[in-house]
Amino acid sequence: MTVTEHSWPDHPAAPSDLVVAPHDWPALTPTELARARRAGQSKRWHAVGPDHLALGVADMDLPSPPMALQAIEDRLRHPILGYHRLLPTLPEQVSQWYVRHTGWKPDPDAMAVLPFGLKTAIRLLLETLADRNHPVVVLTPCYDGLRRVGRDATCGLVEVPLTRGPDLAYGLDIELLRARILATGARTLLLCNPHNPLGRVWSIDELRSLAGLAEELDLLVVSDEVHSPLTHPGRRHHPWPLVARHDRWAVASSLGKAFNVSGIAGSWLICGRPAERAPLLRALKSWGHHQGSLLGDQVMDACLRHGDDWLAERTALVQRLVQHARRVLARDAPSIGCAAPEAGYLLWLDLRRVVPASAPDDLSAYLEERCGLRLVAGARFGGDHAGFARMNVGTSWPVLDEALRRLGRLA
Amino acid sequence: MTVTEHSWPDHPAAPSDLVVAPHDWPALTPTELARARRAGQSKRWHAVGPDHLALGVADMDLPSPPMALQAIEDRLRHPILGYHRLLPTLPEQVSQWYVRHTGWKPDPDAMAVLPFGLKTAIRLLLETLADRNHPVVVLTPCYDGLRRVGRDATCGLVEVPLTRGPDLAYGLDIELLRARILATGARTLLLCNPHNPLGRVWSIDELRSLAGLAEELDLLVVSDEVHSPLTHPGRRHHPWPLVARHDRWAVASSLGKAFNVSGIAGSWLICGRPAERAPLLRALKSWGHHQGSLLGDQVMDACLRHGDDWLAERTALVQRLVQHARRVLARDAPSIGCAAPEAGYLLWLDLRRVVPASAPDDLSAYLEERCGLRLVAGARFGGDHAGFARMNVGTSWPVLDEALRRLGRLA
Repeated sequence: MTVTEHSWPDHPAAPSDLVVAPHDWPALTPTELARARRAGQSKRWHAVGPDHLALGVADMDLPSPPMALQAIEDRLRHPILGYHRLLPTLPEQVSQWYVRHTGWKPDPDAMAVLPFGLKTAIRLLLETLADRNHPVVVLTPCYDGLRRVGRDATCGLVEVPLTRGPDLAYGLDIELLRARILATGARTLLLCNPHNPLGRVWSIDELRSLAGLAEELDLLVVSDEVHSPLTHPGRRHHPWPLVARHDRWAVASSLGKAFNVSGIAGSWLICGRPAERAPLLRALKSWGHHQGSLLGDQVMDACLRHGDDWLAERTALVQRLVQHARRVLARDAPSIGCAAPEAGYLLWLDLRRVVPASAPDDLSAYLEERCGLRLVAGARFGGDHAGFARMNVGTSWPVLDEALRRLGRLA
Repeated sequence: MTVTEHSWPDHPAAPSDLVVAPHDWPALTPTELARARRAGQSKRWHAVGPDHLALGVADMDLPSPPMALQAIEDRLRHPILGYHRLLPTLPEQVSQWYVRHTGWKPDPDAMAVLPFGLKTAIRLLLETLADRNHPVVVLTPCYDGLRRVGRDATCGLVEVPLTRGPDLAYGLDIELLRARILATGARTLLLCNPHNPLGRVWSIDELRSLAGLAEELDLLVVSDEVHSPLTHPGRRHHPWPLVARHDRWAVASSLGKAFNVSGIAGSWLICGRPAERAPLLRALKSWGHHQGSLLGDQVMDACLRHGDDWLAERTALVQRLVQHARRVLARDAPSIGCAAPEAGYLLWLDLRRVVPASAPDDLSAYLEERCGLRLVAGARFGGDHAGFARMNVGTSWPVLDEALRRLGRLA
């Protein structure tokens, strides 16, 4: 580790350091990337020591699309930043976007466009529409945000493990799921499709078996599909409504992950029962919120209108980064297991053979101290995942290579 | 009414219509202003018919400060809009701003900087720190948002009327307040200082009597001080903590009203007991939120650093608009009563002598139909305020004059 310590500016006074041309980001060295990201107040890069690599939090170290930045700049030609109404074209644009990308055509009148991120959207939905006296179910490993939202909005969380096969191939055990739901009285399933942290794009058969169970047990299904726009070329994401057997569902999504705009709050909920939009909007108002946001709507509008080509390119890049990481690990650190994501930039790692059994509970701190690499520890994904970790490979090639070298040193 | 009907663009495709130079806004005619505001997706101006004047919702038809727009534009030179950390200098800057403007020095470690507006901040505070099994008290007339938040976050709302003297001079009846609190078991007082809709800047004596009562009855006092930066020249705003007799309080505020940036969500809470910040931040996280926001922090930073002179000019303009409106009404429509605001751009009107007693409950609809003027009806402020209304005079001179002409026609 030859990275020099820098002092990072607390205030981005627009120094020339900040201005890294979009095409240069994938080539930034660890020092350059950490410096540029910190200057932009990156949550992730500010959380680690100066020569450490921060590959935890799920956003990308790669530029947001020019049309998103331009849309905000265009709006600033209008000098009043007061209360706004929801851009009225957005629900139909979201609907058309699903048509183009998935074949599903959501009803714009069943949609709420929200001024905050996905986790808050799901919390609001659970508070409003779920049976809060009964627990919710998640399939583990499951990212911490969804587990927390489910737990905090209701009377408890039921964690049902996915099956784990060779090569970290995970699958559904529908009988176990049925049994656990019946035993616990759970009434809501929080599905993650594609799945975080595994990157699994559930197959049509898997989804159909879930849909059958949801109908049989009259479950409310909340499908978090935020990683779906980053489904890798050659795979196909099926939105929940295309397989649903009853109308007790809601799809939650946003452009945050796909277009790397999670700093511009915005998301949407689409209800299986259009009549459920009204109570959602009442709850929104009761919390002092309104639909949409002044600048977030501009970003959504621009990405939905003009972002398809950019997204295809970005998804292809993400797939190449994932494939590269898996190839290098298989070659240089075969004792580290690695899932095969079908969407997104998150890599689920099995480090049990390279981390001593006596490693501290906080695997994240252990790894950071041991090899200067900040990942998200498996323990945060529920179930029995000590020794596992999630690595974000949505970064520059040199940062990814350095991270893989550091992982290799564990092996 | 010679205003021509326009069709307003649903999508602000940056046409030249949008670009009204900041210094031109105070001179815009009703037609021009409605057109420009609608092009910017103004919530207020989109809610009324094409030749109607929208003077309800509390934001200004006057530009946001150039340093706010510039700060966002500067941030866009950095092309990654991912997850951010709170700009670490903000709490200290907020604290210094209070020192410069009020003489109070808040503890930065007792402060939470929030990614949403004031009402949501107060709702979160009540859910976290108030005794929700007891009702909250507001002093009426009180703006609807605060009443709703108080009602929805707890088991009920107790409305205690302010006293009303000649010339709509309102005051506190501390004995009535004590009696109502004792009778209802209320444990929380939602104070609005300066008061919305009256524009009252509570005097030091009034605040001291409230502080004595709060100590005596061990009330949690939540002081909404969002209009305080717009205290008119010659008046003095006293932040609650300067009079508080015990530490059970929280100050809620934001730059939204003062700098006309309510479309960029952001606010802060400052706790009388610094230890109460931790549970607030836990509740924030439990809802999937984080402190601050990527672009909102930039706006706050710029306004707090460089906004003092701009704010002084804006406050002087707001005072002139208010004084002009009161003079014209006194001259041309003396049968319309009018409060004398000491802060902000909201004017509380007594229309009881010009509106038939048989006027529909919805005074807002009546006024819009009768004279093409959308105000906020008194009924929305609690208590017995049929026949009253709140008018926003934070607009251009020609719009204000036309609104006053239309009011005059009622008389």
